[in-house]
Amino acid sequence: MQINEDERIDYLFTDESMRIIQSPSVFSYSIDAVLLAHFSSLPKTRGKIIDLCSGNGVVPLLMSRYTSQPIDAVEIQPRLYDMAVRSIELNGKQNQITMRLGDLKDMPAMYKNDKFDLVTVNPPYFDTPSGDHYNLNEHLTIARHEVMTTLEMVIESASKLTKSGGKMALVHRPDRLVDILSLMRQYKLEPKRMQLVYPRQGKEANILLVEAVRDGRKALKVLPPFYVFNGDGQYTKEYLQLVY
Amino acid sequence: MQINEDERIDYLFTDESMRIIQSPSVFSYSIDAVLLAHFSSLPKTRGKIIDLCSGNGVVPLLMSRYTSQPIDAVEIQPRLYDMAVRSIELNGKQNQITMRLGDLKDMPAMYKNDKFDLVTVNPPYFDTPSGDHYNLNEHLTIARHEVMTTLEMVIESASKLTKSGGKMALVHRPDRLVDILSLMRQYKLEPKRMQLVYPRQGKEANILLVEAVRDGRKALKVLPPFYVFNGDGQYTKEYLQLVY
Repeated sequence: MQINEDERIDYLFTDESMRIIQSPSVFSYSIDAVLLAHFSSLPKTRGKIIDLCSGNGVVPLLMSRYTSQPIDAVEIQPRLYDMAVRSIELNGKQNQITMRLGDLKDMPAMYKNDKFDLVTVNPPYFDTPSGDHYNLNEHLTIARHEVMTTLEMVIESASKLTKSGGKMALVHRPDRLVDILSLMRQYKLEPKRMQLVYPRQGKEANILLVEAVRDGRKALKVLPPFYVFNGDGQYTKEYLQLVY
Repeated sequence: MQINEDERIDYLFTDESMRIIQSPSVFSYSIDAVLLAHFSSLPKTRGKIIDLCSGNGVVPLLMSRYTSQPIDAVEIQPRLYDMAVRSIELNGKQNQITMRLGDLKDMPAMYKNDKFDLVTVNPPYFDTPSGDHYNLNEHLTIARHEVMTTLEMVIESASKLTKSGGKMALVHRPDRLVDILSLMRQYKLEPKRMQLVYPRQGKEANILLVEAVRDGRKALKVLPPFYVFNGDGQYTKEYLQLVY
């Protein structure tokens, strides 16, 4: 297994059962990926999953601990795709997880009538950056900013990849909530479950989780709030449960 | 002061400073009205307020404790309008609160270019009821169901009554969140502040508060969650603060 100079291997769970290749200068996963993997309604016994904007493959790897169903994953950056492929191999998950190098907007045409029971996505959160930001670090810029894709393209592509009655789960920032819910409905992904994540009590929400059902009927549930840290700056029990 | 047989007088705050005429068979206010009055960004020194779907006038009465600015209020049911007028008199608020009997959809034409700094509304939450439900109690049916108005008509009318840069605050059910946010944006009321109210820890949200700015720019904040009851079934401190 080739590990490049700027890379390191981190544990995905505190029991050290799974590992992932990361690189601070290229891509390291955030808590958002952990929350998305747990929030999504995983098909347990029958059903196919696809993860878009997959980065170093963190979401498919996390999900593979909780479901044995096949997971496809798409990443547009060759450097991140390569890290993901190696991490999948490192965990012996080649039979379950299939990485694909490509643009999410090309996936509906590629998969044609092959639709998914669950589509997950942790897309870039921010608008197109200024020129300066661009030059600083191209990999991080593409992962974080809407350079290669937009929220609308993400939702449109996800919609086309989701089976009727299938689910689409997204993690994003609460300040985009209006865009997200409107676009989901526009593309026939009806929002059904939403959870807001707060850094700690008394603070505004900083992470948004939404799951929609393709062609679902209108009826949104808002789950109890999720807190990441407690008053003394330690991870909450509910967060630690996700990584233990 | 005429008090009808089916009516009673309740205190609005525990200090017994303000009273309201209620009727279990016609209309009694709910916690939703209390939450709306506190959530809304009240103009303190200069600015006009209008409350739509005002019922027995509970929201204007509550707001009148925290602002001295003029408040108009509109109710379509003569029986409730009459209760509201008497409650306003009972509290000596005739100079501040002006009740109007009418349909909210006629208000933009009536007020013409006279726009408001804050529009508040606690509209009917439920779809049009079946015939049975209708006959049971017409007053409660109209207050709770979209018989005389619809969510879209409420938001369209509110938008027309709100000054550019003015605010519109709404209380509703979380299951209508997608409709609410989409319609607000459609009618140029950009959602800026949102709070979810949970009956207690670990439960799904059951009340939604949203405040939009007319012609505002996109950027939604999600405030910390609000809990009504604590673990032992008592009101939380944060709720009691609203009524003390």
